[in-house]
Amino acid sequence: MRPPPPASQSLLELPLVRDTGALPLQRQLHDRLHQAILDGRLSAGSHLPGSRALAETLGVSRNTVAAVYEQLLAEGYVESDRQGTRVLALSRALNRPAGESAGLPPPRLAERLGGLHATHTRLEAPAYLRPGIPDLAHFPVAAWQRSLDRALHASGPATLDYGDPLGEPALRAAIAHHIGPARGVRCEPDQVVITDGAHGALQLCVRLLTNPGDTAWVEDPGYRGAKAALQAGNLQVLPRRVDAEGILISPQDWQGEKPRLIYTTPSHQYPTGAVMSATRRLSLLEAAQKHGTWIIEDDYDSEFRHAGSPIAAIQGLFEHTPVLYIGSFSKTLFPSLRLGFVVLPRQLLSAARSALGELLRCSPRHNQLALADFISSGQFSRHLGRMRRLYRARQLALREALHKHLQIPHTLDGGLCGLHLTIHLPPAWNDKSIAAALRAQGLNPFALSDFALAPQREDNGLVLGYGNTPTELLEALVRKLAGTLLAT
Amino acid sequence: MRPPPPASQSLLELPLVRDTGALPLQRQLHDRLHQAILDGRLSAGSHLPGSRALAETLGVSRNTVAAVYEQLLAEGYVESDRQGTRVLALSRALNRPAGESAGLPPPRLAERLGGLHATHTRLEAPAYLRPGIPDLAHFPVAAWQRSLDRALHASGPATLDYGDPLGEPALRAAIAHHIGPARGVRCEPDQVVITDGAHGALQLCVRLLTNPGDTAWVEDPGYRGAKAALQAGNLQVLPRRVDAEGILISPQDWQGEKPRLIYTTPSHQYPTGAVMSATRRLSLLEAAQKHGTWIIEDDYDSEFRHAGSPIAAIQGLFEHTPVLYIGSFSKTLFPSLRLGFVVLPRQLLSAARSALGELLRCSPRHNQLALADFISSGQFSRHLGRMRRLYRARQLALREALHKHLQIPHTLDGGLCGLHLTIHLPPAWNDKSIAAALRAQGLNPFALSDFALAPQREDNGLVLGYGNTPTELLEALVRKLAGTLLAT
Repeated sequence: MRPPPPASQSLLELPLVRDTGALPLQRQLHDRLHQAILDGRLSAGSHLPGSRALAETLGVSRNTVAAVYEQLLAEGYVESDRQGTRVLALSRALNRPAGESAGLPPPRLAERLGGLHATHTRLEAPAYLRPGIPDLAHFPVAAWQRSLDRALHASGPATLDYGDPLGEPALRAAIAHHIGPARGVRCEPDQVVITDGAHGALQLCVRLLTNPGDTAWVEDPGYRGAKAALQAGNLQVLPRRVDAEGILISPQDWQGEKPRLIYTTPSHQYPTGAVMSATRRLSLLEAAQKHGTWIIEDDYDSEFRHAGSPIAAIQGLFEHTPVLYIGSFSKTLFPSLRLGFVVLPRQLLSAARSALGELLRCSPRHNQLALADFISSGQFSRHLGRMRRLYRARQLALREALHKHLQIPHTLDGGLCGLHLTIHLPPAWNDKSIAAALRAQGLNPFALSDFALAPQREDNGLVLGYGNTPTELLEALVRKLAGTLLAT
Repeated sequence: MRPPPPASQSLLELPLVRDTGALPLQRQLHDRLHQAILDGRLSAGSHLPGSRALAETLGVSRNTVAAVYEQLLAEGYVESDRQGTRVLALSRALNRPAGESAGLPPPRLAERLGGLHATHTRLEAPAYLRPGIPDLAHFPVAAWQRSLDRALHASGPATLDYGDPLGEPALRAAIAHHIGPARGVRCEPDQVVITDGAHGALQLCVRLLTNPGDTAWVEDPGYRGAKAALQAGNLQVLPRRVDAEGILISPQDWQGEKPRLIYTTPSHQYPTGAVMSATRRLSLLEAAQKHGTWIIEDDYDSEFRHAGSPIAAIQGLFEHTPVLYIGSFSKTLFPSLRLGFVVLPRQLLSAARSALGELLRCSPRHNQLALADFISSGQFSRHLGRMRRLYRARQLALREALHKHLQIPHTLDGGLCGLHLTIHLPPAWNDKSIAAALRAQGLNPFALSDFALAPQREDNGLVLGYGNTPTELLEALVRKLAGTLLAT
């Protein structure tokens, strides 16, 4: 047998960097040898020089070299035998310069991603007239911080640990006590599950109730984020048209495959603003009970009621409705808080309790406790009251500006609640290209047709958000809007 | 045709509650009529009394009654005709007392929930010797609060809005700069995606890379939370044995169906503490590249290295490894912060960029910014240094106590890193019943066999967490433990 090849000297004799701020000599030497073994410059079977010799060559202490050899031994790159320290034979396919090892297969993403209903690209702020954003300048940061400080201190080390996966009891109670009277929701605190916003609530409903390939019915036009969440959850998402009475489901629809879920916004349909009629509410509940379908009621902006009396949630029309009621604090407080909730029917709760512990981790507990404090200290209601007045005035200003400056034929929808108005445009106008033209000018209303999976002729218009657009700017922005509409 | 039946008088004449704190009279009257219509006590076709008459009966203003009738009209429960206000015919199936309407089908939960690998029931604190929890009493809450305050103020209203779904740039950069030198991870900040802890990171990997029914290989025994997350993601989870060199994958294993994902903890296998050997690391990478399998490297407790030199992450062994590197701040800071991250291979990142915008909402932005501040201000490294020393001393104390008091034959595993030691017990002892007996005494080590999907004879022992158990209590607790072991 021929003697093992000697290790490449040149490599080993390279001086080490001694600048302050450079890696420790031991680390430098380890990384050099480690890399050289990986890329084959120190070939399998070759001996490393004795620690004393290498220490002298490099002008470092012998202990440094010995420690490096020990680590390489621990990592399994070398072995020691009678003749000293020898490089082990490693997987040859990877024994080559790192540059060549880019042998990654092209990434095959999950099929579901192809089906995702793409939502809008975000503009850099300011994105005037963008729907779905509350007024951020008027949020009482100082009051919020006081609640957060109390949460950090009052609670002590225990709240640094994992919490109840269903959420902080204090927050669940505060929410239950709020939505009972405010929204006519029938629930006890233990039915309230805290989630990462409405998005997290939807994901939870899908994971709890559906198997891959199950069918979900959604309002069309409707909230795109919900469609994306259902599609991402491996559901087959079927559009159901919306008219002045809300989602339109015919007896024929129930002849075919029964949906596992129906996603709906009865109090104020997004984006048309339709309020679901009593007849529709009751027949929807009846059919859902009959066919074992669950209704997801997204009560997304019901807190900001501008006209008439509040329409109660369908969840509470009877006891034991087949409804999962979803709410979020993204519009009542602020989106980046990422807190929302779902109210589970009691028998669903008991059936799912153990699974919930696996599916959920708690949302950040200090945020939850701060919100519980913010609600129970009355700050939440005060903030809602202030914002309700602000948004009402803002909507009025928007209506007036539109009436005054929008010369082309159009109809206005919505506005009973919430933070947006929807303009319907004649077919002569293409809402997508108008929205694109407006984006170029820093205006970010959404094209109505983008809300539809199966757009119809009438799904043509603009969804104007006034939540985060200063009132004093509205008239100028609407003039810009009107100009763009005339120009296209 | 016979005249419509009169509305039930008795019901309408019930006095309204006038206590302070009672609902407004209008609300009371609305709810009473609304409920009566829903449950059929006011039957379809019956006329409500004239507003003047009812106002007199109830001793309220006529406007109050008129407003209530208007709302019922708006809600679609009544119509007005020549003779006055008439109750509409509603869905008859639901026209019955609420009590009877509990016609919900038994909830059919998703099939995946049956397969969830159940983890342990939590104890009420204190749960001594529970694995996976860092020391909470030593977390510098005051310093954290300063970082949080800076995040709340420095940022201004813009950070109340939705952020980059991939995470705050400042945090992604801080993490990239930390894990490069500290863990040998090769990444740029844009490859770091912020998630809701390691749990959120795992969910993201599953949603990005897998289709329902795909196969995932996991270490057995191994981290139960990961198995549950993969199962919840509709994957078929196959156990692969672990030995002293880490996960054991034979060439035969690669003959069958190729897994989409392999979940592994190479630096410090959980719970056995094995360090994956260089040979295994390289052949794993080689096989994964060859078969188009993605490796999820969970580097869960590598920050707390107690002996020898740190073993670098396999993600960085070469450029372009097929590795998704997962990290979490649950143990380095605190669990209820719910922040973690995944480092995506670059070509995966570009392929998935648009999908990521749909799959993710940002984690709470103030928490992200506070963490970025905490890291860049040096607090994070200082905290890690303090805790490393604390945990090292604590492990030593635990070893000594076990050596001193544990009379029965056993072997100790792990301890190179992290917050736990694993005791292997002879078959004569049943680890599950021992763990149960200890729970009853406020001790919460986990049974080793509970970590295995397919437990073998040798998967018998206790996983002792020392992260959140005060050093001075360890000896007394180990005595209790030893007593229980002798007693069973």
